[in-house]
Amino acid sequence: MIKVAQQYLEVEPWLIREHGFHPERAKVSESLFSLANEFMGIRGYFEEGYGGDRMVGSFFNGVFEEERLAQTPAFSFRGMIERSHGIANACDWLHVRIAAGDETLDLTSSAFSEFERVTDMRTGLMTRSFVWKTRGGARIRIVFSRFLGIGDEAPGYQRIAFEALDGDCVLKVGLGLDFDIPQYTQRLARQWECPRKSASAHSLAILGQLKRSGHGVFASARFEGLDGCAVTPVEAERHAGLDVAFALKAGGRRTIDRIVVATVRRDPPVDVDALWAKGLERAAAKGKAGFDEAFAANAAAWAGIWEDVDIEIEGDPANQQGLRYCLFQLYQSYHGADPTLNVTAKGLTSEYYYGWTWWDTETYCLPFYMFNNPAAARSLLQYRHITLAGALERARQMDCQGARYPMGTIDGTEAVSVWQHGDLEIHVSAAVAFGIEHYTRVTGDFGFMREAGLELLLQICRYYATRGQWSPKTGEFGFWCVMGADEFHMMVHNNYYTNFMAKRAFEYTVETLAAMRTRFQDDYDRIVGKVGLRDDEPGTWRTKAARMRLNRDPVTGIIEQHDGYFDMPHLDLATVPPEQFPLYEHWPYLKIFQWDFIKQPDVLLALFLHGAAFTREEKLANYEHYEPRCMHESSLSPSIHSILAAGIGKRDAAMNYFQQATRLDLDDYNRNTWQGLHTTSMAGAYMNVVYGFGGMRSDGELPSFDPVLPDAWRRLRYRVHVRGSVVEIEVTPGKSVARVIRGGPVKLVLREAATEVTAHAVEF
Amino acid sequence: MIKVAQQYLEVEPWLIREHGFHPERAKVSESLFSLANEFMGIRGYFEEGYGGDRMVGSFFNGVFEEERLAQTPAFSFRGMIERSHGIANACDWLHVRIAAGDETLDLTSSAFSEFERVTDMRTGLMTRSFVWKTRGGARIRIVFSRFLGIGDEAPGYQRIAFEALDGDCVLKVGLGLDFDIPQYTQRLARQWECPRKSASAHSLAILGQLKRSGHGVFASARFEGLDGCAVTPVEAERHAGLDVAFALKAGGRRTIDRIVVATVRRDPPVDVDALWAKGLERAAAKGKAGFDEAFAANAAAWAGIWEDVDIEIEGDPANQQGLRYCLFQLYQSYHGADPTLNVTAKGLTSEYYYGWTWWDTETYCLPFYMFNNPAAARSLLQYRHITLAGALERARQMDCQGARYPMGTIDGTEAVSVWQHGDLEIHVSAAVAFGIEHYTRVTGDFGFMREAGLELLLQICRYYATRGQWSPKTGEFGFWCVMGADEFHMMVHNNYYTNFMAKRAFEYTVETLAAMRTRFQDDYDRIVGKVGLRDDEPGTWRTKAARMRLNRDPVTGIIEQHDGYFDMPHLDLATVPPEQFPLYEHWPYLKIFQWDFIKQPDVLLALFLHGAAFTREEKLANYEHYEPRCMHESSLSPSIHSILAAGIGKRDAAMNYFQQATRLDLDDYNRNTWQGLHTTSMAGAYMNVVYGFGGMRSDGELPSFDPVLPDAWRRLRYRVHVRGSVVEIEVTPGKSVARVIRGGPVKLVLREAATEVTAHAVEF
Repeated sequence: MIKVAQQYLEVEPWLIREHGFHPERAKVSESLFSLANEFMGIRGYFEEGYGGDRMVGSFFNGVFEEERLAQTPAFSFRGMIERSHGIANACDWLHVRIAAGDETLDLTSSAFSEFERVTDMRTGLMTRSFVWKTRGGARIRIVFSRFLGIGDEAPGYQRIAFEALDGDCVLKVGLGLDFDIPQYTQRLARQWECPRKSASAHSLAILGQLKRSGHGVFASARFEGLDGCAVTPVEAERHAGLDVAFALKAGGRRTIDRIVVATVRRDPPVDVDALWAKGLERAAAKGKAGFDEAFAANAAAWAGIWEDVDIEIEGDPANQQGLRYCLFQLYQSYHGADPTLNVTAKGLTSEYYYGWTWWDTETYCLPFYMFNNPAAARSLLQYRHITLAGALERARQMDCQGARYPMGTIDGTEAVSVWQHGDLEIHVSAAVAFGIEHYTRVTGDFGFMREAGLELLLQICRYYATRGQWSPKTGEFGFWCVMGADEFHMMVHNNYYTNFMAKRAFEYTVETLAAMRTRFQDDYDRIVGKVGLRDDEPGTWRTKAARMRLNRDPVTGIIEQHDGYFDMPHLDLATVPPEQFPLYEHWPYLKIFQWDFIKQPDVLLALFLHGAAFTREEKLANYEHYEPRCMHESSLSPSIHSILAAGIGKRDAAMNYFQQATRLDLDDYNRNTWQGLHTTSMAGAYMNVVYGFGGMRSDGELPSFDPVLPDAWRRLRYRVHVRGSVVEIEVTPGKSVARVIRGGPVKLVLREAATEVTAHAVEF
Repeated sequence: MIKVAQQYLEVEPWLIREHGFHPERAKVSESLFSLANEFMGIRGYFEEGYGGDRMVGSFFNGVFEEERLAQTPAFSFRGMIERSHGIANACDWLHVRIAAGDETLDLTSSAFSEFERVTDMRTGLMTRSFVWKTRGGARIRIVFSRFLGIGDEAPGYQRIAFEALDGDCVLKVGLGLDFDIPQYTQRLARQWECPRKSASAHSLAILGQLKRSGHGVFASARFEGLDGCAVTPVEAERHAGLDVAFALKAGGRRTIDRIVVATVRRDPPVDVDALWAKGLERAAAKGKAGFDEAFAANAAAWAGIWEDVDIEIEGDPANQQGLRYCLFQLYQSYHGADPTLNVTAKGLTSEYYYGWTWWDTETYCLPFYMFNNPAAARSLLQYRHITLAGALERARQMDCQGARYPMGTIDGTEAVSVWQHGDLEIHVSAAVAFGIEHYTRVTGDFGFMREAGLELLLQICRYYATRGQWSPKTGEFGFWCVMGADEFHMMVHNNYYTNFMAKRAFEYTVETLAAMRTRFQDDYDRIVGKVGLRDDEPGTWRTKAARMRLNRDPVTGIIEQHDGYFDMPHLDLATVPPEQFPLYEHWPYLKIFQWDFIKQPDVLLALFLHGAAFTREEKLANYEHYEPRCMHESSLSPSIHSILAAGIGKRDAAMNYFQQATRLDLDDYNRNTWQGLHTTSMAGAYMNVVYGFGGMRSDGELPSFDPVLPDAWRRLRYRVHVRGSVVEIEVTPGKSVARVIRGGPVKLVLREAATEVTAHAVEF
């Protein structure tokens, strides 16, 4: 299968630069120049308006609208969800309209030159500049800058700098807070009602409320640089604004800054007056600093972040840039400030995928946070505890007990209305259990387990114990009628990934239960009492784990992805013309499921996540079977292949897949970056370098390191948090070095040798 | 599994009688008292209006409204249909409102006694009578009568007879033609626009048009018995009416008759003026006869129909009545006048199942028509030829060639929007092939084959040849990712029923192709040319038939319903509490598919349809395996079990299932008769008596007879059309007799002996 890079941005170590405007990629650029700060996110759209192809996007994390799902009465079935929800496209708080004479600036129709758009990943600043030649004959350089504060519900900042290069002119500038934003995934519906607005000479405020969910967003803007301008307040149904006019003589300049403070409420019913009052109070408290002061503070904060998070690759500028971009976007999307939030498939860069959190939080994203920001990793797990009620209720709806975590969700209730995914993909709960296990082992923090982790594990086991069934032929335990991680086989029985992950959840839970009873009797009693654990349950879980069906060809040792998989008709993927990808768009839906090819790793994912449980020979045999059958129609696919390939010595394949992972969005490999960034697969890119070439493994007792430097690379350097210390791994040709750069000594396995690593460099 | 009769109607040989009104069964009665004449159908609702539970229903066969299916953009997939359609609830042409003083007659609020509702199956007349005690103190007997003419687009007739038993009164009667009828399956939407209406002193006309499909219905009414009444025309958006007032003195009577002639157009765009003119013209031509004259003609027509169609059972009044009811409703629903129409799941008694035609036309309904009205059987097959274009297009949509017949349809395009049925149930085309084979063999009419049958067979084979795949393990041919006749297993591979039926389609087609080439070279050349048959195709079909996967346990000889079926977890159906039925309403959808129980016969259906291909031992073994696993959640299920049980000597089971089949609706076994009659399963009841106790087989070279009279029965008598003659079979204890009652001698197999049967009784 051929994936082709579409590179149009400059390759630079720290910058994402679009040199000259590419209107045919307008929406791709909007995605790529997105900014976020966990609390809110904004696409890189043209704030002055644009008549061409665009998808304005401004999001507040967790703020969603509900949808009642229409079902024809004769064809609605029990257990299918009746209500869904999706992140709301909220408030265009950068809203500007600029006119000179009777010409409104619009890059589809206005004359302009020297266009450049740059995001500086060192500071989180995005700037866009061009020279506008007005119909009136003036030439005006305009530079738009924006950044989002890093910190608790921090403000957003915008600067608009005008410079008349030649010719005099009068500019009329409309500055607004605008909730009249279309919901693109809901046929451009306007979802907001705005019961309160206000405008004064230098500030705006507006309150938006969603009709069905009742969620509320207060947004305020304070402007600097309007002195001497004529200012008129304007108001529309979902808009509060100021119309500003000023003259600019040749050589003259004016800079307008905007500081935006927002406050959200996601706990309806929302009291409009109370939210308004709280919003104003927070605006006053948080919006004091001006653009320059806030920017300086932010740049310093980012410098501190990069200190730990950065990964250096020398000798491979494209991957260096791609990887940094992934780290930058991941950190922006989520850094653990609020445990009621989570990482979403597209971060805060799009409505697509509805702002949902999926099972890749635990299987793909967690390592980035565990090794860079362990508190954020714990927040991610706490989210599963906060949303436990939804998982318990969902299991009951499906006639099961325990906790059945949703396939996609914001608030913890199942939001995936495509039942063949929402109802059949039962592997999410096992991923949560895996996340708890992984976190606890790597961080050594047993606190989460004592507080909530064991409770989740018990409820998860209970779900699988009641969802599973027994084979009448072999007496094995397993799961009939599921969809595994590979979504190109549906309604299969005994999917390997699902069965293996559930088996491990059973085993780890039984083991942890015993450890808790010994070490923390009080927590044990409290949790067991709360869950109402019956004496016989752990024993049945042990039995079910021991008798779990795990299909494997006795001759070749190759694992069978599900019952009957080896009898699925074979298709050579090389015979599929590239223009038929993605298959979802080009093939009849049903035909996708009729063959032995797979969408993304399933058996191989289990082999990666639980690598220590499999030999190198097993990995090799299964890689060679499944890799040629994989379509990679999930963006989560290449990184897992790269990591496994690196581990079994397939260096070319490892590098090829790595490239697809780091630059998936920058080079739009999947032709859908316009829909938003593949944020969770960026976490896959992180894993790719650290677990792949970086050679780390974190599924044993101690973290282990066995790096493999690609031939072209001169140096690879990354840092990981391990049990309270920060360890730096530096790999150069023929030499690997580990050292602690912060905190006390830690025990690591370096090329199979358990080693105590200190601040002094250890070569291995 | 426990199915319980809910009997509330009298058991009488020729009448369906509700003695005293049963408001709790109001909608069940509406279904049971439905009348139809193939052209139109009407539920047994109270024409005077009713404030209680009701579902008014009036249908014109084939007149449907379209629906564009809403799909969330991110979740619509290729190959899924985008447009559906469903029969339109059309015109309440019996519409009456009756008032005395300020009291409007309504059986929810008015005082009444002596209620009786009766359908006389000998004549097709439905009458309803009661005595109304008005608030004004008068007692008025009202008798409503209705019947539908049998014949080409024949009129409907209504009589309303008033008799003042005591007290004087003035009655105000509103007589209307009313398109303001809710579409119950579309959230009570009003679907009709009425661009033209007219009213005169004794007649009404109105034209309704459907907004999306453009189908049009013209309805006219001529009244008799209005002499001396004050008559005022009234009009509303979708209504044309006459308000009539007359006085009734104690002992006085008045009878109002209505003759309704309708004309429909299903070929948009419909010219409103042309349809109006044509409607008036037909009204004048067809509406001349009054109620009594038309009734006499109709009663004579029904007498002629019963002469052939009736089946007599002596010694079992309940089954005698139930069976006659099935024959009556089947004949009403369809008798072959128009080959663009077909039998629908609920006849013309409901919107439920959307007026669609399914695969049971060929597998269940065809025998009733072949053996009673061969021309109608041929019309049913012609329907598949008329709708071939839709089947060809559907195959292309699914990346296949040939003809893929829809799961449910009116106009030949797929209407089933539940993709797991519409897309996965690929067995419909094989049923069509089976129908062609069955018809040709039984009737000896090769004309349909020469005209169109071979063309259909070739296109059907082409579909299966391109839909099928090869097993990489065994080299067998088969069908992956299907749903079989048993709808409780989804996305299975190599469903036995599907594979077996497709194999037979291949074999029969190859055989027929050779016969055509020899016997009818011209037709052969024409059809092969039209289809563009490639030389190699028949050979590949032979190979695919020969290598078709047909799973069977080598030890027990039991057929495996699909790959891996014997490994499906087992559930003892006796452990499922009766209140959990139907499972679709009480179980999570997914859970239905996780077990080895089945919804309806699948393997057993193949064994019945192709009985000659299996030994008695095979039938016994498979019956004993599958019967205890069958939920019978399809109304098509009991009759097949009864027939097989009769053939293998399980007399009690045969009688038990027979009872469920004949009285399914009369006794509301499935608790859903309110949604309409199970018309196609009534054809199953016909098969049940003729193939079951009647012992007929029609899948060999000659029809064969081997009756088994149940102990309680004193006599069974049925008549069948065989190759132009009508044969009567009469079975009494210890004695069976065959004779030709019309036409020349025919060859039959009587208890395994080939016999020429003539007008003289042959005992066997």
